[in-house]
Amino acid sequence: MNKQVKAGGFARTTADDLRHVRAADLAETLSHLEPEAAAGALARMTEARAVIVLDRPEFLGASAAIAEMRPERAVTLVTAMSADRAADVLGEMDAERRDAILALLDRETRATLDGLLAYPPESAGGMMTTEFVSVPVTATVAGALDHIRTIERSRETIYSIYIVDPETDALVGTVSLRRLVTADPAQPVLELTRQRDPVVASPEMDRRAVARLIRRHDLLAVPVVDAEKRVLGIVTVDDVLDAIVDKHTEEAQRFGGVEALDRPYLDTSFLGMIRKRAGWLCALFLSEMLTASAMQHFESELAKAITLTLFIPLIMSSGGNSGSQATSLIIRALALGQVRLKDWWRVALRELPAGLVLGAILGAVGIARISAWQYLGFYDYGPHWPLIAATVGAGLVGIVTFGSLAGSMLPFLLQRLRFDPASASAPFVATLVDVTGLVIYFSIALVILSGTLL
Amino acid sequence: MNKQVKAGGFARTTADDLRHVRAADLAETLSHLEPEAAAGALARMTEARAVIVLDRPEFLGASAAIAEMRPERAVTLVTAMSADRAADVLGEMDAERRDAILALLDRETRATLDGLLAYPPESAGGMMTTEFVSVPVTATVAGALDHIRTIERSRETIYSIYIVDPETDALVGTVSLRRLVTADPAQPVLELTRQRDPVVASPEMDRRAVARLIRRHDLLAVPVVDAEKRVLGIVTVDDVLDAIVDKHTEEAQRFGGVEALDRPYLDTSFLGMIRKRAGWLCALFLSEMLTASAMQHFESELAKAITLTLFIPLIMSSGGNSGSQATSLIIRALALGQVRLKDWWRVALRELPAGLVLGAILGAVGIARISAWQYLGFYDYGPHWPLIAATVGAGLVGIVTFGSLAGSMLPFLLQRLRFDPASASAPFVATLVDVTGLVIYFSIALVILSGTLL
Repeated sequence: MNKQVKAGGFARTTADDLRHVRAADLAETLSHLEPEAAAGALARMTEARAVIVLDRPEFLGASAAIAEMRPERAVTLVTAMSADRAADVLGEMDAERRDAILALLDRETRATLDGLLAYPPESAGGMMTTEFVSVPVTATVAGALDHIRTIERSRETIYSIYIVDPETDALVGTVSLRRLVTADPAQPVLELTRQRDPVVASPEMDRRAVARLIRRHDLLAVPVVDAEKRVLGIVTVDDVLDAIVDKHTEEAQRFGGVEALDRPYLDTSFLGMIRKRAGWLCALFLSEMLTASAMQHFESELAKAITLTLFIPLIMSSGGNSGSQATSLIIRALALGQVRLKDWWRVALRELPAGLVLGAILGAVGIARISAWQYLGFYDYGPHWPLIAATVGAGLVGIVTFGSLAGSMLPFLLQRLRFDPASASAPFVATLVDVTGLVIYFSIALVILSGTLL
Repeated sequence: MNKQVKAGGFARTTADDLRHVRAADLAETLSHLEPEAAAGALARMTEARAVIVLDRPEFLGASAAIAEMRPERAVTLVTAMSADRAADVLGEMDAERRDAILALLDRETRATLDGLLAYPPESAGGMMTTEFVSVPVTATVAGALDHIRTIERSRETIYSIYIVDPETDALVGTVSLRRLVTADPAQPVLELTRQRDPVVASPEMDRRAVARLIRRHDLLAVPVVDAEKRVLGIVTVDDVLDAIVDKHTEEAQRFGGVEALDRPYLDTSFLGMIRKRAGWLCALFLSEMLTASAMQHFESELAKAITLTLFIPLIMSSGGNSGSQATSLIIRALALGQVRLKDWWRVALRELPAGLVLGAILGAVGIARISAWQYLGFYDYGPHWPLIAATVGAGLVGIVTFGSLAGSMLPFLLQRLRFDPASASAPFVATLVDVTGLVIYFSIALVILSGTLL
């Protein structure tokens, strides 16, 4: 009844199977072992058990462990694994080993895995599994339930059933097991689907968009269909949950200015950790060197008005902070689909006044601080202290406004250039704002203090 | 068969019900209306339709709209809504209106909602719904399926069935609809549960821990039990998905230095936006004023060696960047449970050498830059330029090491003080590191340059 089925599909663990408790623990333990040791541990398990452990996404070293096995064993296990996980694991292997294993698989499994491997890992095609349940439009409730009972053990989920046209293989509707169980057995399944336009994903769809579909429609799985509406596979809610959490970790690390780690913090090697951090740190350092150049440019002004330098860290950091706020707001709004690329103009029209108001608030605080210190005798900013205070105040307005605008526009720019908007990090925004901030500050100083201090 | 059932429970929309497509859209549209207008729109719908729309978490103004309704209408709708959503919506109301509605509810519904409202919204108790399916230990597969068919329409999910002891009401095991459907009808349900120790949550459990349970065991729902193992409710995977995405947005915004927004970016009022940003910005600004004080403290050194000021922004930002990296890594590691409070020492022992190596890399680049500019004649750092270069290099090692250590320890400190570790923001870390960074830089300068420039 269903052609997209992997021949060797092994008994899948069901969602509530309590062996998972131990399987997840075991998978995590194996993740800490060297590949040979992990392969050895898998060799000592029954095939069924090894497959259950390999199927767990917690097992980070699965592909390295499989690469260490005898080819025949590797082929048996890969054939028995769930198709989506098997494709993920093979995708992490170097091309040579992967091709060696693929070559030994039976024709059908190889075709399935080749198909899945062709999609980018972050797309619906790369996340989907081919182990779903479909029935022809002509099926009755009783017939569908009988079919489900026969093939249940080889399917990822049986809670969503896809009704297809037997001629064209095109998806006609979806029905839930919930409805099948409560319906009259003699009823045709087609009558149970209320609308004839089921929610579907395309194989190219980004995993974030797939997650949005599943969330919005409270689905347990979403079918992935080609241009002819043939079901290629399904993405299940547990895969989406994992993908969302991974994506969150990746985004949080990138926003902090680190390349996303492949493994948990404490499992990342010291050198690996340095590599993930040094690259960005050096790139930011090199960009930030422009601040030294900017300062050199204003050297004579600096020498004449040392007082100005006292506020440089304060002013620069305020620009960076307002930029970081705006960037984090826009990255999330874009990720949630609350704001689209074409909304950049609306966002700019909000951030400009927001920046001016926030800058004015900080400017007022800054002026109050300088005046207070001067009056209370904590520090003497010299005879021109009101002008210094005005420079600091005006500088803050300019820099905070620039920070809010630049910080909010950066994610749009990245998206426009087809980068992930979430690659804009707080340190990156701060660096961007720092150099410009210095130039703004000194330019304002030149205008206000020219003829007196400068 | 199940006592924890809300009397008036209305036909719940099923997971794959395609009316959701329109309900979600409608809920979003209503979110943009004023409360009176939204209440008016709901008044024009059938009761069934209004309940479906109110049940959608996308409807952000649900509680304001209900507060605008005639009390009888409000009571009918609240009674018919799913219990977890009704409790969330009532929880957002002011106490007076909430109590007015609760007082008019039937005794059973009021008891259910009072119970749910007693739990913090971010706990398992605050997220759970009471509309689950339970059967006694004595039930057969056929009996359980018959029971499910009778009560299906009033349940949030029927895919997880809870087997309870009829005497004590204690949870004995769980079984999936999948297993029921494929099992022999005459078999006792108890035989279908492999282990007698089902995965459960306590009502106080944090939503992040609930999400971890559901992810780890690939569950569609997790039962929430009290100390006597009685099932109080269930948390379903779709609620967890929503909670995770909301939490992610909150964390990303806080890491960027903004208070979490309650509504989407473009729906937040201008003043609301300023309020969410000005607080942190002012707090950071006031703390950062310590940099001005530090600079004032070193004023005579600054006057003697202006060259030193050229590198202040460069050095300070490097400290902030390394701190932001470390903080983002540790926040995520703590959130994912990869690192626990007691691991702070292991983390410190990794971050210390990591900071030294990263600082040494940046220090080498910095020394190379100064030497190159000096040799190539781009800039003259004076006769003591090698000492200046050494100061910058040593300063970078000290500041980057301090940044990595302080940035990685901050989330632990916050967790220890019972704050959310994710309230550590990139701007906050940068500010923390800036002041200390200046002191480190000038102290190193005093040691290296004393007797020559200073």
